[in-house]
Amino acid sequence: MSSTASSTTGTTLSYEQAGVNYDLIDPLKVAAQRAAAATAGHLSAHGFTEVQASRGESAYVVDVGPFYLASIVECLGSKALVADEMKALTGKSYYAGIAQDTIAMAVNDLITVGATPLVVQAYWAAGGSDWFGDAQRAQALVAGWKQACDVCGVAWGGGETPALAGIVESGRIDLAASCTGIVSPKSRLSVGDALAPGDAIVLLASSGIHANGLSLARKLVERLPQGYLTEVAPGLSYGEALLAPTTLYSPVTEALAKAGVAMHYCANITGHGWRKLLRHPSALTYRIHSVPAVPPVLAFIQQHTHQDDREAYSTLNMGAGFALFVPAADAERTVAIARAHGVEALVAGTVEAGPKQVLIEPIGVAFSDDDLQLR
Amino acid sequence: MSSTASSTTGTTLSYEQAGVNYDLIDPLKVAAQRAAAATAGHLSAHGFTEVQASRGESAYVVDVGPFYLASIVECLGSKALVADEMKALTGKSYYAGIAQDTIAMAVNDLITVGATPLVVQAYWAAGGSDWFGDAQRAQALVAGWKQACDVCGVAWGGGETPALAGIVESGRIDLAASCTGIVSPKSRLSVGDALAPGDAIVLLASSGIHANGLSLARKLVERLPQGYLTEVAPGLSYGEALLAPTTLYSPVTEALAKAGVAMHYCANITGHGWRKLLRHPSALTYRIHSVPAVPPVLAFIQQHTHQDDREAYSTLNMGAGFALFVPAADAERTVAIARAHGVEALVAGTVEAGPKQVLIEPIGVAFSDDDLQLR
Repeated sequence: MSSTASSTTGTTLSYEQAGVNYDLIDPLKVAAQRAAAATAGHLSAHGFTEVQASRGESAYVVDVGPFYLASIVECLGSKALVADEMKALTGKSYYAGIAQDTIAMAVNDLITVGATPLVVQAYWAAGGSDWFGDAQRAQALVAGWKQACDVCGVAWGGGETPALAGIVESGRIDLAASCTGIVSPKSRLSVGDALAPGDAIVLLASSGIHANGLSLARKLVERLPQGYLTEVAPGLSYGEALLAPTTLYSPVTEALAKAGVAMHYCANITGHGWRKLLRHPSALTYRIHSVPAVPPVLAFIQQHTHQDDREAYSTLNMGAGFALFVPAADAERTVAIARAHGVEALVAGTVEAGPKQVLIEPIGVAFSDDDLQLR
Repeated sequence: MSSTASSTTGTTLSYEQAGVNYDLIDPLKVAAQRAAAATAGHLSAHGFTEVQASRGESAYVVDVGPFYLASIVECLGSKALVADEMKALTGKSYYAGIAQDTIAMAVNDLITVGATPLVVQAYWAAGGSDWFGDAQRAQALVAGWKQACDVCGVAWGGGETPALAGIVESGRIDLAASCTGIVSPKSRLSVGDALAPGDAIVLLASSGIHANGLSLARKLVERLPQGYLTEVAPGLSYGEALLAPTTLYSPVTEALAKAGVAMHYCANITGHGWRKLLRHPSALTYRIHSVPAVPPVLAFIQQHTHQDDREAYSTLNMGAGFALFVPAADAERTVAIARAHGVEALVAGTVEAGPKQVLIEPIGVAFSDDDLQLR
């Protein structure tokens, strides 16, 4: 797996140049996944079983009898560093949005398996006790966290606020969220068995970069004469645009479930960009006939990193934050329900029998199975 | 709250001198707890309710109908820094034990509410991709994590392995675990209503410092001529002794539940040492007539930091890693069951009507409510 395969010019800025080397992480991931899979049998002592198909999905699912239990822990990543830089430049705290981003990382993954998120736990590991001494920032983090819980209808159960001098850098914070939910009724489980040729692909709009691609975005800032204050659109700085909080999609998936729309499969479009449309293990072709509008900040990043469409769509969400695979007959209704919950959406394509690939026809880009090894 | 109140000599090394300032963290914690409590109502949309008494406890509990759902996220803290130093001195990797410590932080808290831990998620945030390039260390982390899951009978659901250059320090790793479990049957719930005068206090032995007090322990090393290689007992270095993995107590609590022992209340003895015996909100007196043997590493720390018993017992576990409050008639059986699962235990005292205090009679130390504000 490499996101640099299509780099063709010397000035292209790729993901690996931005400091993330998946070749070093992946052997560990494989070993961890293998060890983790070997622990599933423990559940039988309690009369439970894992949903094995969830092993390759975004959240882990256990059959506990009357419903399925889903759980996850997710990291924000490096987006808080942008908030810190922008605070230095503008005096404003962006941590309310950062809180939403962190919860979105967990909730938007949890819902892909059909789960209703119930409880969120906060993991706020600061570089020292003094991080919490900035009352404006701390209060913004608390308020934003609360508000995101309100939007998602989850209970904030508690969390952990360690001061980790020597591990977390001074003045920084490592933010993560865990989320527990249930799949109820059990028919809501969407771990892939229902996906089939003929299904429609509905893309839910992103609000911007969300929280993936920030290493690249932060690297790019070094090339910008005005740095984070460079305008990406009139009156909108690069930094402000990057900090648009990630859209929370659980109100949409909950509304769809209530409306009886069967979500055959879902993909949260995070790292690996549109290659995430290939997440499902089956050999199926995803033919995209319409792409969403590209948020200004992503168009700006693509332009200034000199990435071609292939590279940009393989790394960034390019306007699509979440993909829903639904029966064709429900496609327009899905769009309408998303819009009713304030999330722009479009029927973007169809699932077809054929080799495993995503064909993004409007831009002439195709990704095949070789472009994504997530499992 | 201050753990330095009893510092009397210039050479005493206290917890705040070791770099953790709770005065800065606590206002944020209070604000976060208030905001979190205000989100509980969201559960009613799904037909569920929170167990309000769990708000002040170590894990958050929701009534989901047939059973209670419990969840938590917990951080290892700074113990990994000791493993890193010892690796430099001995060439060995201690990360299998560090993995157990991390899981213990989550599991030992989760079980206090009567929960059976079911699923653990790993949160391993490294200072850069290269952390995972040390195969010996990475494999030890994976193997130790797996083994701890095996001991606790939990399924390792998955996790997150971000590379967080700029947030986590280069060469370091921020380790945490989330854990989800159920309280089933619901009668196992132990959030305090059953605790009453006459109950016995059974203390389960610790294996050493566990993962609390490490800031102090690391600060002390600067005063030791041979540093981490200083012997705390013949053939046992300070570093090795500190790195004894935290005891996992869930096999004991599961066995007690199966044997029909009613756990009226539990306290995981972590930060704040024996003051954690005051965790229950009621006004009750905890009279301790027997104390466990103090592990050599804790006796060594007390001696070399010149702490009196009051300060040592208010910060470190001093040999008691977990407290069980059980009916007096079940006290000896509780000890026997713990021992049968390889955990040393003793009947240490009784719960009495009276002002909120813990009286540690063998050492003449008392802690009152003023000494602990956790909620």
